Amino acid sequence: MLPREYETQNCSVARTLELIGDRWTILIVRDAFLGVRRFDDFQRSLGIARNVLAGRLQRLTDDGVLERRRYQERPVRCEYALTRRGLDLWPVIVSLKRWGDTHLAPDGKPLLFEHRDCGGEIDLDPRCGRCGEEVGVGGVVARPGPGAVLPPTSAAA
Amino acid sequence: MLPREYETQNCSVARTLELIGDRWTILIVRDAFLGVRRFDDFQRSLGIARNVLAGRLQRLTDDGVLERRRYQERPVRCEYALTRRGLDLWPVIVSLKRWGDTHLAPDGKPLLFEHRDCGGEIDLDPRCGRCGEEVGVGGVVARPGPGAVLPPTSAAA
Repeated sequence: MLPREYETQNCSVARTLELIGDRWTILIVRDAFLGVRRFDDFQRSLGIARNVLAGRLQRLTDDGVLERRRYQERPVRCEYALTRRGLDLWPVIVSLKRWGDTHLAPDGKPLLFEHRDCGGEIDLDPRCGRCGEEVGVGGVVARPGPGAVLPPTSAAA
Repeated sequence: MLPREYETQNCSVARTLELIGDRWTILIVRDAFLGVRRFDDFQRSLGIARNVLAGRLQRLTDDGVLERRRYQERPVRCEYALTRRGLDLWPVIVSLKRWGDTHLAPDGKPLLFEHRDCGGEIDLDPRCGRCGEEVGVGGVVARPGPGAVLPPTSAAA
């Protein structure tokens, strides 16, 4: 058995979890990959309390996973974009998705990550499974898959 | 923008995080991949409170990620082993490790995952990078890497 120092403070899994090992944080990063950039859009997408979201975005910015960019001057408005460091989290997001698709989606994948241009599926490799092109942020589109649960709008009537 | 239902309840990333999206849980799974099986060994490795560890192990067992196996009858003693479902979490662990190795380890990787038999590095693919063999649990050994911090035993003197 390795001494405890190797296992906790001295392991890249533990260090990574110190930065992003929080459910909201990972879901914010997932949304950023799916093209969400603005505070209100993250808030709407996640249904997260605004103060919690603000804290997580600040932390992700401090840690260099996201960067703040001004998109409007008067009044000043910022949006959040994945940095190189953030983009490298793609395999984390996809490996979580893949496990859920395999083990927690008896009716099929709820969401498909597809290459916007050609519809090929995007998996661990950031290259498109169909056309081979390296797909950047904004190039991935999420579509409801066979296991998607439709919003209960009509059922509630 | 996808409706909120797709983003939160209806996405495999979110579903997976509901099961394992907790730092201790992921570190328990990491330890299980590194061959830890017994309660006291998890406890020692993680420095986690016993009641917290017991809760996490129970949850992982209920969720079918670990299974309890008796290794002694009188008194009854159990150990925990990864199920097939648990083994499929390998890419999650490795992708977290890889990101930390790249972005949070300026002195080099703190830990190396190697194939016990030949010393080849094990990455996202469960096959050994050197010999190509598919490496199961117990076949991966963790060694201090170039960025390992040695326990501060002598420095404290």
